[in-house]
Amino acid sequence: MTLADQPPAAALVFQTLLAHGPLTRAEAGRRTGLSPGAVTKVATPLLADGWITELGRPAVAERANGRPATLIAVRAERARFIGVKVTADEVIGVLADLTARPLAARRARLGSRDVGTVVRAIARLVTALREAAGARQEGGVHSVGVTISGDVDGHTGTVQYSPFLDWRRVPLARLVESATGIPTVIENDVRALTVAEQWFGAGVGLSSFALVTVGAGIGCGLSIGGRVVSGAHGVSGEVGHLPVGGGDRICTCGNTGCVEAVASTHAITEQARQATGDPELTMAQAVRLAHSGDPAVRAVFALAGRALGRAMASVANLIGPERIIVSGEGVASYDLFADQIRRTFADHAFGAAADCDLVVRPLPFEEWARGGAAVAAQRVFAPSK
Amino acid sequence: MTLADQPPAAALVFQTLLAHGPLTRAEAGRRTGLSPGAVTKVATPLLADGWITELGRPAVAERANGRPATLIAVRAERARFIGVKVTADEVIGVLADLTARPLAARRARLGSRDVGTVVRAIARLVTALREAAGARQEGGVHSVGVTISGDVDGHTGTVQYSPFLDWRRVPLARLVESATGIPTVIENDVRALTVAEQWFGAGVGLSSFALVTVGAGIGCGLSIGGRVVSGAHGVSGEVGHLPVGGGDRICTCGNTGCVEAVASTHAITEQARQATGDPELTMAQAVRLAHSGDPAVRAVFALAGRALGRAMASVANLIGPERIIVSGEGVASYDLFADQIRRTFADHAFGAAADCDLVVRPLPFEEWARGGAAVAAQRVFAPSK
Repeated sequence: MTLADQPPAAALVFQTLLAHGPLTRAEAGRRTGLSPGAVTKVATPLLADGWITELGRPAVAERANGRPATLIAVRAERARFIGVKVTADEVIGVLADLTARPLAARRARLGSRDVGTVVRAIARLVTALREAAGARQEGGVHSVGVTISGDVDGHTGTVQYSPFLDWRRVPLARLVESATGIPTVIENDVRALTVAEQWFGAGVGLSSFALVTVGAGIGCGLSIGGRVVSGAHGVSGEVGHLPVGGGDRICTCGNTGCVEAVASTHAITEQARQATGDPELTMAQAVRLAHSGDPAVRAVFALAGRALGRAMASVANLIGPERIIVSGEGVASYDLFADQIRRTFADHAFGAAADCDLVVRPLPFEEWARGGAAVAAQRVFAPSK
Repeated sequence: MTLADQPPAAALVFQTLLAHGPLTRAEAGRRTGLSPGAVTKVATPLLADGWITELGRPAVAERANGRPATLIAVRAERARFIGVKVTADEVIGVLADLTARPLAARRARLGSRDVGTVVRAIARLVTALREAAGARQEGGVHSVGVTISGDVDGHTGTVQYSPFLDWRRVPLARLVESATGIPTVIENDVRALTVAEQWFGAGVGLSSFALVTVGAGIGCGLSIGGRVVSGAHGVSGEVGHLPVGGGDRICTCGNTGCVEAVASTHAITEQARQATGDPELTMAQAVRLAHSGDPAVRAVFALAGRALGRAMASVANLIGPERIIVSGEGVASYDLFADQIRRTFADHAFGAAADCDLVVRPLPFEEWARGGAAVAAQRVFAPSK
């Protein structure tokens, strides 16, 4: 059996089990729209080939068509994946099983941002993680999932544009594949983290949620009805460029009024430098000044908080997610804009949209890398998607 | 056979045929994720009971599993539906077949906006349309779909809040059902029009689109992956309350900065009154003054156009739809803000989000009413959704 031989319903059942964990055949049927009989039919070859497994009966016996309702689940040890998150300074990797449970993690500094340097760093990271794998278990790594910020075309494996690395049209999947010998998929890093949150984070069991990341950039992933929104033209979740920022600072995209123009790490640092008259001030120093009560620097964070609150209200008004998860490096100093975010969000959320739950989650880069492993696992049965 | 006996896969196949028209079993399988065999299995009782029908072979013979690939399609004449759109002044109804093809249409003025008056007007409209039906064909009307602006809970059949009618917590579905004796579903009017555009309008065949309606209110429906987004808390598509309007006019929701505060019919009229110093000026007169070149009134429309352009860019940046359809009463004077909409949209759409297609569609209220018939037809197999 090759995976490509499987009918589309098999991919549907498999991905439902990946995202939602052990289910009875009846429950898998309800979630996929398949009859229990159809679930049984597609599950049989997956069971035979070890991709899924049967667990014991659920505590409360559920019976469908007179059969005992055993649970079926993805067999975590069936395949391993390496997820990699690329930042401007570092590559972070995790080795994970089929359910994206991490088995080992490694980090490496980047000497430069040129494509060759980054690809070689990823290849060394993959080698180190494979060796960690070898020490634990026989067998290879099924595939690598690399995640990176910017306009990433997962279908062609090309980074169309990544402002942080200053890359344009880099065929990254092919390059990593050549350097490692392992099939490689790539995805936008925020979308991959959204997949991770949907499977095993603060998005589990929700009908819809948004993940807003605050840091060097302001990103957003959207999960609606169990699927991460990818955008017909490759762009989605660009909350950083919603024109709700206020003020006349010019954004990296050339516009005024963007959220990123006032709330990214760079924008906050720049504005704090102006406010203090110190052209060398760092973000860490700005945070310390704000914590010590400096009113001008506190005002910079307050402005950022209001822009973020308006952006989150825009997400709530348009999509109506069950929850908005706030993460990214910026949450380390979240206390400096939390009040403004909540107040502005409550002001601008329309009617019941204000019932949307706001949750702050510090997620280390290893969690982002797990997102890469989750994306790779998700594509086992649908490599072109 | 009762419809509730059908497995979930039957509803999936039926709704796919409703939305996408005649398909081969293989194509229906690709779109639903079911195997061709599973499609055949669920199609058999639907064929037997006349809900779907087989058409001749497609022009280019497609063969799956060695069988001739006949097309299956919804049998339009199997059931009829009445769709009703309620405005502040009028009720507009259409009688339609299972594919929402209109067979007759009627309108009636509303003497007042109180619940009893509106329900009686709907009941009279339904009677008139049933009589029109009787003249054409035997048999009854399967169900009624009433659409109305505001926060509408389709699950409980309750209008939670409709600002235009000043209604709160009105159990409209039950009231119309009692008055007409026909099962009734209700839906937000913009979401119903989005369903209509998805089935038989400018949304056919698109992976995703947004419908922005400009008029007394500024609304938005979102279709992603063939499903209309409804919002976890009942709110979605509230583009009128995105905080991108600019200026300090106070919106009906109590905020400043909302799109509706500068771009609704009421807001444009108010601003034109201020600009001209004429407290009696009507919207029609404002449109005439703008067309005649009055710079102050033209500036009012330009401000509205910029707010709408920023709102549409926000939709494009967040969701990345293939297309944005602009409709509503406001498109009658669309030429007065078209330039500002396109320019502001292009300025604020991020990267490839600017590739999103903007299409202007004047849609009479009968099309909105068809949306109600489409929603009713869609719920034949899933009455609680």
